Amino acid sequence: MSAELKVELGKRSYPIIIGSGLLDEVGRLCREALPARTALVVTDTNVGPLYAERVRDSLTRRDFETTLHTVPAGETSKSRERLFEIYDAALDARLDRRSLIVALGGGVVGDLAGFAAATFLRGIAYVQVPTTLLAMVDSSVGGKTGINLPQGKNLVGAFHQPRAVVADLHTLATLPTREYRAGLAEVVKYGVIRDADLFAELENHAAEILDRNDQLLEKIIRRCCAVKADVVASDERESGLRAILNFGHTLGHALENLEGYGKLLHGEAVALGMVYAALLSEKITGLPHTDTIRLAALLRSLGLLEPIPPRPWPEIAARMNLDKKVARGRPHFVLAEKIGRVRPGHPLADHLLEDTWHSLETLLKGGADVGGK
Amino acid sequence: MSAELKVELGKRSYPIIIGSGLLDEVGRLCREALPARTALVVTDTNVGPLYAERVRDSLTRRDFETTLHTVPAGETSKSRERLFEIYDAALDARLDRRSLIVALGGGVVGDLAGFAAATFLRGIAYVQVPTTLLAMVDSSVGGKTGINLPQGKNLVGAFHQPRAVVADLHTLATLPTREYRAGLAEVVKYGVIRDADLFAELENHAAEILDRNDQLLEKIIRRCCAVKADVVASDERESGLRAILNFGHTLGHALENLEGYGKLLHGEAVALGMVYAALLSEKITGLPHTDTIRLAALLRSLGLLEPIPPRPWPEIAARMNLDKKVARGRPHFVLAEKIGRVRPGHPLADHLLEDTWHSLETLLKGGADVGGK
Repeated sequence: MSAELKVELGKRSYPIIIGSGLLDEVGRLCREALPARTALVVTDTNVGPLYAERVRDSLTRRDFETTLHTVPAGETSKSRERLFEIYDAALDARLDRRSLIVALGGGVVGDLAGFAAATFLRGIAYVQVPTTLLAMVDSSVGGKTGINLPQGKNLVGAFHQPRAVVADLHTLATLPTREYRAGLAEVVKYGVIRDADLFAELENHAAEILDRNDQLLEKIIRRCCAVKADVVASDERESGLRAILNFGHTLGHALENLEGYGKLLHGEAVALGMVYAALLSEKITGLPHTDTIRLAALLRSLGLLEPIPPRPWPEIAARMNLDKKVARGRPHFVLAEKIGRVRPGHPLADHLLEDTWHSLETLLKGGADVGGK
Repeated sequence: MSAELKVELGKRSYPIIIGSGLLDEVGRLCREALPARTALVVTDTNVGPLYAERVRDSLTRRDFETTLHTVPAGETSKSRERLFEIYDAALDARLDRRSLIVALGGGVVGDLAGFAAATFLRGIAYVQVPTTLLAMVDSSVGGKTGINLPQGKNLVGAFHQPRAVVADLHTLATLPTREYRAGLAEVVKYGVIRDADLFAELENHAAEILDRNDQLLEKIIRRCCAVKADVVASDERESGLRAILNFGHTLGHALENLEGYGKLLHGEAVALGMVYAALLSEKITGLPHTDTIRLAALLRSLGLLEPIPPRPWPEIAARMNLDKKVARGRPHFVLAEKIGRVRPGHPLADHLLEDTWHSLETLLKGGADVGGK
């Protein structure tokens, strides 16, 4: 069983296939997408031992000549060193312009291998095979690829759409609990920005979701991907609407960066950033405080919103100013109008940002009722 | 006085402005192209001392905040080290998504700075200000950007169109003789692939061209850019027609790589490669031998076609097989049907390639009459 969506981008359109047991179908799905002869499978030290052979076998059955390249698991692999090792592997494997890169893993592998595909020989084809919840609902769809610099995340990259996204739900079974929960933060995000029904469903089924119920997950992932595909189709290169996908990410990226990658997971940071954005929204768009409370409560029920070590505000403000989304030198925030609707791109006054940071700190320490009416 | 052409690529269309004294107009022309506030001017140690201040002044007059970044002159700067130094410079200069990179220099600076622009923050705007003949007629137009790997040239890169190309003919006055002559090889190429009248004009005015007559040069550069703009507009990403621009480049790249970059200049290698391609064409397309003779004679009259150190064929064959244009493992050759018309993409038998290499060696040693009827 599998569900298929499509990202509509004219000649660069591609399918998102979501289902159980799809790892064995990767070869067939790649073969449907393109006539490549050679494929480089890029994975990491966590995912490779579990799934790489199945994917390679599946590719071999469809006449791909495959080579495996494994990078260390973790965010630090989104580096120039690992990138150039992929180029070397691609040359050793004799990839040419008609070849294919298969990104088998989470967001790190997808971003890194996708950027290698975007730039090797000025761009070759790649297919995303996401194995984490975060990658399935977010990073594998939409063609954003890139690496980090010591100065910040994703500062170098390219928009390069995959030829297909193949999400096998079975791979979620082996995902560590903490990483699975962090992925749910992005799921919640889709509810806030575009899909109030999804948000309500998450509220009603938090326990089953934490239990990784396959059927429920397929439905939820499909809805997230549908929102993402729709947003990407209308604004591929993030000149407008696509910015709404960054809800919670302005503070999120800054915290992730300050705490150190891997210490605070991306989703954990985004969860904090979303509540922060909601608190800001109350003051600017008039988001009802009850919506902020619902958001914080849902995130808590999913095991997110752990308090973080206290940090002086100027450190955080400085880090947000380094964000690449800073246009004309000021950080912008996606703000919610209500659960299910947001608007992009607000620069806000410094004192407001600082006050709201303290509200967030209080909320994390206390209950969900801070700043209430 | 300046002439303006346009590369027609829909929303990504841009002008090519060719004229004398345009360095002082860079600010105005950039301002017409985009509303950026911050600009990073990338240049090299040869060009920077001559022209960087004029370009920066011109940008400042149009309210750009500029920072200068200088890389060592020469092909070795198309490296990952220099690339990541540009990212650092861009961050130090606080470039954001609306900022601009100005590539002031020859093909190396254009390719390197263009690739930095293609990938910094997933792509920002850039303007090409070519200061060599080669860059004016070839590398600055068409959006090919990239760096070299130790394994070969341009193995990493992106298609990223500039917002404008500004070619100031005055900068050619300071170009070393050898580099100027090497640039003429690409000019001759346009004659062979698309413009028999241009080819005849070059034959008739070789001496004035070597004297760098401004008026003649403007006319010639304009014609070369018109061919390039037309070819790029119909095949931006080199899936077909654009390959004709690689006439002479399959062997050319291999020789350049074997001799060592800087020892044999790109244009010098392409000159050899074009005669080689013409000799191959005689056998496949029936190109008249007199056309090969005309080509060799024109290149000689422009100071090109110097003999190179003898090399065993297997070395050259192996290097051609590493070329990124190698589809399904075999090198392809653009072949001429007559002066002014070529066809792309021929894979050829090994013995033919080897025999023709020996014909080229003989031709270089002897006169232009080798292999004749």
